[in-house]
Formats: sequence, structure tokens, C-alpha cells
Amino acid sequence: MQSDRGTPRSEPEWSEHPLAGTFTQTDTDAFRQLSGQSAKGVGVASTRHRGYDSAATVTDYLAVSFDPPTMLVSLDSLSQIAEAVQGSGRWGLSLLSSSQISVADQLSGSGRPLIGQLAQVPTFRREENGVPLIIGSLAWFELRTIAVHEAATHSLFIGEVTAMGSSAGPATRPLIRFRSAYTRL
Amino acid sequence: MQSDRGTPRSEPEWSEHPLAGTFTQTDTDAFRQLSGQSAKGVGVASTRHRGYDSAATVTDYLAVSFDPPTMLVSLDSLSQIAEAVQGSGRWGLSLLSSSQISVADQLSGSGRPLIGQLAQVPTFRREENGVPLIIGSLAWFELRTIAVHEAATHSLFIGEVTAMGSSAGPATRPLIRFRSAYTRL
Repeated sequence: MQSDRGTPRSEPEWSEHPLAGTFTQTDTDAFRQLSGQSAKGVGVASTRHRGYDSAATVTDYLAVSFDPPTMLVSLDSLSQIAEAVQGSGRWGLSLLSSSQISVADQLSGSGRPLIGQLAQVPTFRREENGVPLIIGSLAWFELRTIAVHEAATHSLFIGEVTAMGSSAGPATRPLIRFRSAYTRL
Repeated sequence: MQSDRGTPRSEPEWSEHPLAGTFTQTDTDAFRQLSGQSAKGVGVASTRHRGYDSAATVTDYLAVSFDPPTMLVSLDSLSQIAEAVQGSGRWGLSLLSSSQISVADQLSGSGRPLIGQLAQVPTFRREENGVPLIIGSLAWFELRTIAVHEAATHSLFIGEVTAMGSSAGPATRPLIRFRSAYTRL
């Protein structure tokens, strides 16, 4: 036990673990592995900009405030989805269920076509030219950007929720990313 | 299927679901429930400020950049942990394993004592008066704040990783929060 004002304790050793010990900030490979130790729900960020849909599988999002309902998504600043969200100012976030691995796969990776990304994905939208949202998602959120912050390689888009709902039954389970693989509860 | 440039599609109806339909941004209760549909890994944010340890269970954190390793944690701006992290400029993030529910419980809620929060939690620190980190966590990160952004009720602390490691074996499973309950994979 560490008492609150006690003497410092040296770091324990777990020599059997490949990630045991201490890495410095230049060990980016270690960081990839260590940050992958966090289990994350899988979602889809989406938008419609200049008449085209853009969407990408994401795990780096969060609710930052309940009142007013406010969310954040972190997108690679150089990605097509970041550019489209930046230009549109409106975006969607759909939380995928465990049965939607194929959606997550289709909207991942850099080899996707720029046009027609959602052609094979069941979507709905609340209004003409509105943001596409994924049918069957545990929850969907429609947002309007209120701030963008740059953080190293990524852009943090902060949005106020303008509409939200669910399109899945209450027994639906979430799709989860853990250690670079999809899994479920 | 929704074609990329196709006509708008009206929202499907899932009338059997209590969260079916569309909620507006003033429905904060619906937002709590809908954002709880995201599965999240459970962590502990911690710091040491003016000779005292502060720590809080968190689920709203993410890695925002691999190179340089950069992370973000979202903390209620009025919370004690936010004040301490703001003052210290250095903080830790420990990713809890599924066997650490008691740690998550001890560091949750507003009824905790201001002093001695970590007295019953096994911790280590890398240097005297360094940030306390949770022994047994899947991964731990030590960070230095490089930016703070306010977002509605919360403060987004962005930190560069100064050291990191793991103190759990490779078979260790993560602790997960889903629909306001702890669970595991």
C-alpha cells in the first residue's frame, strides 16, 4: 500500500511481460501497444459535404458534457473524413453493435474509395442532404461543430448534439476494439 | 441500402425500444442513456499536487497521437481532480484490469475524502513526489500537460507521454464500463 504522503516507492518489476519496465516518449511502438490495452467501443464518424458522403470507423470519441449534450471525436488531421467534417460543420456518430464488424471493416483503412464509401452500408438520414447515420447502431448522434482543437497529428472536433436516438433493440451488445482486434462483451 | 448520392431516406422506426425515435438536444436524460451505449475501458487519472495525491476513476480518455505519444482526458471542470491536474501540470493514467473493480469503486463518486484517496490502493511512483500510478494496471502513462481546452462542463487535458509501461501480465483482461455497470470481455 502506498500511503498518501509516504516515501516514494520504486517501480515494481514484471520482467515476464514484454511491456514490463518503463518506456520513454520516443518509444512510439511501445505506445501503440500500450494504448491498445484500452478497450474501446467502436463507432462510425460520418458527414455529408458538397454532395458526397464520408465515413470512417473510429474508436477515439467521447461524451464531454451531459448538459448541454456535447461530444468529441479525434480524427487524423490529414484524413479525408477530417477534411470533410471540417468543411461540413455537421457530423454524425453511430455506435456499432457486435453484429456490425463488416461495417467497421468496410469503413477502415486507407484503401477505401473516396466516393461511394457508404454504398454498401445501410444508412438513414434525418433530412435531405443530412449526415448519414448507420442503421442498427446502438446509438446515433447528429452534431454541429462548436470547436476544433489541434493536438499533435489529430484534430479534436467538439460538437453539440442536435439530435440523437437508437436504432437497435435493448439486448444489442456493443462492438469492442481491444489489442488491435474486434471483440464483444 | 443507401446510395451515396441517392434520395434521402426517412428514419426507420424501432417503436419497441425505449430509446427509439429522435431526441433533441434538450433531452439530457436520453443523452445519458444513449452515450452509455458506448463500451469504455476504465482508467484512473491521478496526480500529486502540493504534497497530496488525487485520483479519480475515468472512462473519458483517449490516445490522440502515436507520434509523439499524446493522450487526452476529459475531467469535470469543477472536480477536485481537475483542479489538481491543472495545478500540477503532470498526471498519470492507469488502465484498470477486470480484477480492479474495487479500485474503480474506491476512486469514484463525490463522497470520497479529499486527503488519503489512494491510501487503500496499491500504487507506485517513478520518483519522489511523482504521480501515483496503479499497480496491476494493463498500462500506465505518465504525462505532462501541453494544452487544456474547455468544452461545456468539462476540461480537456492534453498531455504528452513522458513515460509508460505495463504492470500486468499479457493475459490480463480490461475492466469495461457499459450501460452504467462494470463488465469484462
